[in-house]
Amino acid sequence: MRKALSAASLMMLMGLAQANEGQWQPYQMPQIADKLKQSGISIAAEDLADLTQYPMNAVVGLGYCTASFVSPKGLVVTNHHCAYRAIQYNSRKQHNYMRDGFLANTMGAEVHAGPSERLYVTESVTDVSDKVRSNLPEDPLLRYRALEDNRKALIAECEADENYRCSVPSFHSGLEYYLIKQLIIRDVRLVYAPPKSVGAFGGDIDNYEYPRHAGDFTFLRAYVGKDGKPAAYSEDNVPYVPKSYLKVNAKGVSAGDGVLVAGYPGATQRYRRASELKFSKEWLYPTQAARYQRQLDTIAEMSKDNEEVAIKYAGSVASMANRMKKLNGLMDGFRATDIVGIKQQQQAEFAKWAQKDHADVLVEVEKLEQLLAQKRDRQQTDHYFENAQSSALLKTAMNLYRWALEKQKPDAERELGFQQRDQKMFTARLKRLDTSFDAKVDKALWQMDIEAYLAQDHRVPEFDALLEENTEVPLGERLEALYALSSLRDQQARLDWMNKDVAEFESSADPFIRAAVSLYPVIEKQERLEKTLWGELSKARPAYMKAIIAFNKEQGKPVYPDANRTLRISYGTVDGYRSADALYKQPFTKLEGIVAKHKGQEPFNAPSRLLEVIAKGDMGEHKVEQVYPNRQSWMCRFISCNDAQPSFNSVPVNFLSSVDTTGGNSGSPILNGKGELVGLNFDSTYEAITKDWFFNEEITRAIHVDIRYILWMMDKVDNAHNLLDELELVK
Amino acid sequence: MRKALSAASLMMLMGLAQANEGQWQPYQMPQIADKLKQSGISIAAEDLADLTQYPMNAVVGLGYCTASFVSPKGLVVTNHHCAYRAIQYNSRKQHNYMRDGFLANTMGAEVHAGPSERLYVTESVTDVSDKVRSNLPEDPLLRYRALEDNRKALIAECEADENYRCSVPSFHSGLEYYLIKQLIIRDVRLVYAPPKSVGAFGGDIDNYEYPRHAGDFTFLRAYVGKDGKPAAYSEDNVPYVPKSYLKVNAKGVSAGDGVLVAGYPGATQRYRRASELKFSKEWLYPTQAARYQRQLDTIAEMSKDNEEVAIKYAGSVASMANRMKKLNGLMDGFRATDIVGIKQQQQAEFAKWAQKDHADVLVEVEKLEQLLAQKRDRQQTDHYFENAQSSALLKTAMNLYRWALEKQKPDAERELGFQQRDQKMFTARLKRLDTSFDAKVDKALWQMDIEAYLAQDHRVPEFDALLEENTEVPLGERLEALYALSSLRDQQARLDWMNKDVAEFESSADPFIRAAVSLYPVIEKQERLEKTLWGELSKARPAYMKAIIAFNKEQGKPVYPDANRTLRISYGTVDGYRSADALYKQPFTKLEGIVAKHKGQEPFNAPSRLLEVIAKGDMGEHKVEQVYPNRQSWMCRFISCNDAQPSFNSVPVNFLSSVDTTGGNSGSPILNGKGELVGLNFDSTYEAITKDWFFNEEITRAIHVDIRYILWMMDKVDNAHNLLDELELVK
Repeated sequence: MRKALSAASLMMLMGLAQANEGQWQPYQMPQIADKLKQSGISIAAEDLADLTQYPMNAVVGLGYCTASFVSPKGLVVTNHHCAYRAIQYNSRKQHNYMRDGFLANTMGAEVHAGPSERLYVTESVTDVSDKVRSNLPEDPLLRYRALEDNRKALIAECEADENYRCSVPSFHSGLEYYLIKQLIIRDVRLVYAPPKSVGAFGGDIDNYEYPRHAGDFTFLRAYVGKDGKPAAYSEDNVPYVPKSYLKVNAKGVSAGDGVLVAGYPGATQRYRRASELKFSKEWLYPTQAARYQRQLDTIAEMSKDNEEVAIKYAGSVASMANRMKKLNGLMDGFRATDIVGIKQQQQAEFAKWAQKDHADVLVEVEKLEQLLAQKRDRQQTDHYFENAQSSALLKTAMNLYRWALEKQKPDAERELGFQQRDQKMFTARLKRLDTSFDAKVDKALWQMDIEAYLAQDHRVPEFDALLEENTEVPLGERLEALYALSSLRDQQARLDWMNKDVAEFESSADPFIRAAVSLYPVIEKQERLEKTLWGELSKARPAYMKAIIAFNKEQGKPVYPDANRTLRISYGTVDGYRSADALYKQPFTKLEGIVAKHKGQEPFNAPSRLLEVIAKGDMGEHKVEQVYPNRQSWMCRFISCNDAQPSFNSVPVNFLSSVDTTGGNSGSPILNGKGELVGLNFDSTYEAITKDWFFNEEITRAIHVDIRYILWMMDKVDNAHNLLDELELVK
Repeated sequence: MRKALSAASLMMLMGLAQANEGQWQPYQMPQIADKLKQSGISIAAEDLADLTQYPMNAVVGLGYCTASFVSPKGLVVTNHHCAYRAIQYNSRKQHNYMRDGFLANTMGAEVHAGPSERLYVTESVTDVSDKVRSNLPEDPLLRYRALEDNRKALIAECEADENYRCSVPSFHSGLEYYLIKQLIIRDVRLVYAPPKSVGAFGGDIDNYEYPRHAGDFTFLRAYVGKDGKPAAYSEDNVPYVPKSYLKVNAKGVSAGDGVLVAGYPGATQRYRRASELKFSKEWLYPTQAARYQRQLDTIAEMSKDNEEVAIKYAGSVASMANRMKKLNGLMDGFRATDIVGIKQQQQAEFAKWAQKDHADVLVEVEKLEQLLAQKRDRQQTDHYFENAQSSALLKTAMNLYRWALEKQKPDAERELGFQQRDQKMFTARLKRLDTSFDAKVDKALWQMDIEAYLAQDHRVPEFDALLEENTEVPLGERLEALYALSSLRDQQARLDWMNKDVAEFESSADPFIRAAVSLYPVIEKQERLEKTLWGELSKARPAYMKAIIAFNKEQGKPVYPDANRTLRISYGTVDGYRSADALYKQPFTKLEGIVAKHKGQEPFNAPSRLLEVIAKGDMGEHKVEQVYPNRQSWMCRFISCNDAQPSFNSVPVNFLSSVDTTGGNSGSPILNGKGELVGLNFDSTYEAITKDWFFNEEITRAIHVDIRYILWMMDKVDNAHNLLDELELVK
């Protein structure tokens, strides 16, 4: 055997990591067919390109997540955290599915996932660039509006059939537009969810972290009317029969194997100019982080001896801490790798190319850089101006005034969020304020934001004018007076304002209502300025991207567009990474790692039924002797395979691969080279947080739930044999 | 080449990890000659056994550390943290060697390391078991005293030459005794120390941690009188000419290489019974940890709004936090590995062996277990009783009373610490109390300890009687009264007590002095009880160890004795380890890791001159392309060597090996297979903290400074070419 394997085939077998950058539009797959093959992907590129065929027509959208069909009866698998709302919706004190998990042993026992759960099946993707971009006016604001109108018209035409949701997202920063047509499945049911202590094992502490041990999976089912067409929830509905569904490979993958991920990644900024990165690195992130830190410190100080405040702001604190973690990851990432420097080098090469034969490109780049300087200015103004309106009472007043303004229009013409159907949510929000608001804290945070606004130069003159009233009184006292004099602290008063008309607002003496009325035209003007700049950029950016594509084409490199919530495919290799000097993270975690992390306290509180099965060593056919098969065979007789775990002998729980993902890829199926399901994507590593700007193949890893852990849970822990029988298992 | 290498030789070359347990007495080396060879150690076992020959006569003791000669002019290398006192001693405001480092460019510039610095060269090790253990009385207390007297007599005879320090430590728990004769070098000078920010880079935060980046090295020099004999510090002294000195291998080691460590490990407990481990795991460590936590919480609470208290107790808090880290490591280690279970299994095998032909052994084991039950009882009593005397004022009173008692004897007969020469230190301690004592905190901590004593059953009746005075008054008030009424809070009053005689103590009304006088006979009785138990164990333990040795001998396994501060040798392999599920720590760290950890704040504040040289990439001949040479050559063309760092291209800073070390091995030379210096031992990993009980070869790793980092510092950063020239470099 030794002699039969060439070095090249061994390399392939054993998966030397490839550069796996790219969230490709499915139609582009034939352009990268060679690379797919090299990575060990055997399914034909042409098959991947076809949205009407296996496996792509089994991949569906789920709000801000991805999911996939895994049975002919509309069974769907996604992340636990993507089905969180559905589980919450069905949890009661007497049956807490969030805490205990949920399993329907029969279809009849499946429960409605809630009125807002939707599955979206992408049926067609049509290039409509010409239609969107034709006959655009030169004036930037008019241009902005024309682009919006063109897209809206296409959407309206496509959505004539109410079973479809259509959209016309921009690709390559407005160079291309595609009409995306998606079937909407409106009756989604909860089938099987593990307890939160499995699905979110490690919780916020482990967020972005690896080694990881989360069972982040949940099964749903798509239902349609008896006619096979989408329908609202009804007991009479029947399981949807998908065009195809993913086969499930029970043997999973090994280190070095090639894998694919398909899904709906949200947004990346890979083609931004170095100046944009530099601004984010040097101003935006540090400024945002400093503000969060200031707010966290203030809340901590004010809730030290005040449990009520602590409880009211617990939610804000948790979400700010999460955003801080992401910001710290971005700042750490920019510190660890000189991404700005790398971009500058790339731009220098691009400029060299342009200088030769494309002098016009240099002019366009110059124009773009000028607009980006304006944009930086706008971002700073927006940052300070928006934050200077951060009081929860002021926001409430502004929403109530907007409600009164929109109420004057026919319902259909009102802004989203201000229509009849939004009234319930709107009311609920007004009531809920009491649970998350404390006047002293709100005022303290707001005052810091206003002081930050006043301490810098990016000012809004009309806002300055408002602030200049009563300047002989110190700011703190002026703000305190607003709270003291406003009726909005009272719930009933807030609700009463919902029924008042514009005139009543405009003649009100309530200081927050008065502020909202005065601010309205100022904000409108700022939005107009923003749209104008956007209109300018809608010319400059596509021109730049066109040149970038041409530049790459000359080197034989296809270009994928930035992520925009449309269906994409990425390929990669199952692989570990070095997260710091001398610290190597291996690609697979195992059951025993759960036991080692278990503390009996949230978020490290694995359920006892799971711990008992591990203690018994009952792994059945899901146990894997080795996840490094090629390293463990004859090779390891000769070299120390110590650092590759000499033997695995467990069920793999989570694994890493170098596929290119971002937010929105949660729940995405991870496919082996044949297109069979081997895991679910659910997170990426801390060191990879900067990947939305720059894909660093050395450290960018996505984190997946291993299919073998899911099957073991179903088989040995939760006795979900009804569902196991429904899957098409490849063994 | 591929075919020329047999699997066995490849295994050796590439160092499949061996079981490296054992801190061997040098004379035992021929017993493990095969294992040394297997590990790639080519120096002859017989040479290692000979203390009068290279390399062992170059290895010297340094108080609680180890050091080694590295030049014919008495140059010595050890850890920075082992030379801490010497550096401190020479630091002044105007030349802060601790902060800035120190380098003597000529011998004349070398500075006296201080009057308490000593180097100890072990010249002979003689078996004196027969002399120590002959004609011992049966009565346990008399037996204890006879053993002490026999050892003291041997020491006195040996120390007739004042240039020698002699000791008669027990080996195998009293089965064997050796007379150790060490030449004392009394004039030690500081030659070269890096700044603390290099030597202790990472500080307490990185203590027990890896990946590590500490330059924990310092050079000293041994000086003697012109006659070549040891002498006190004098300007006229000349460099000592050692019998031999270590060659320095500038090429260092690679992953998989065999290494040796020689030094003076302090204390291990590898042959303890499972019942002793169980007691430590289940009672001792948790009880100690809970007490520290209670104390840390109390001090934190009491210093919250009191900066004076915070400053006074900062030292105690730091040292308790350190001890907590070690205790947590012990408890985590016992949780992670069922060490008690492993010991029980080993004991079961031993019992099976004994049952066959050695029935008497079982009787002895039974006897030992009975004594160990008594010992557990004693340990609990001691714990609570000693802590119940924890007040700093009470301890002061007890010391002062002892001072008065000892003063009655001729100086030579007084207890150590209470002689004329101790007066200065004693006085200083009495004065210093003011800087670390606050009556409220002292009383609060003491009260908790007394309450803990009272809440359990391991009581000292005579102490109970003392506590039962005035029980109608609550304990807190009674203690407060002691502080209020005692003069000892006053520095002058404390100093005055030094001149008073026993009668004055016994008639004093000062409550702490009265307590000290009353407690004295109680403590004496407890010590007697302890010595009696020790006398019993001094029969039972050697008998048990004798059987253990016989049991192993039948299986062809030599037995090394527990560490006891005598010269030992251990061998191992340069190797990483898996510190948690999917988390692999690679064996070498590099310069770039310092930059990544650098924060500009202690303890992560690398000096700018070092950072500048790294930034320039000036690594010179110290740069290593690959520390995994065998993995990186032809093998890695075939398999993914990703997890072995595809290329190193830097100067190795610290490295790991599986040698068997413990406290006292700090500063120990790490030798390559030829016995050449390749690094200095300075710490071990968190997961290895339980190794004093049980050597787990999978996770036990010691942490070393790489010789290439030391040489790079000398060459490129600190310009210590005078010293580099003095070394015998093997390139």
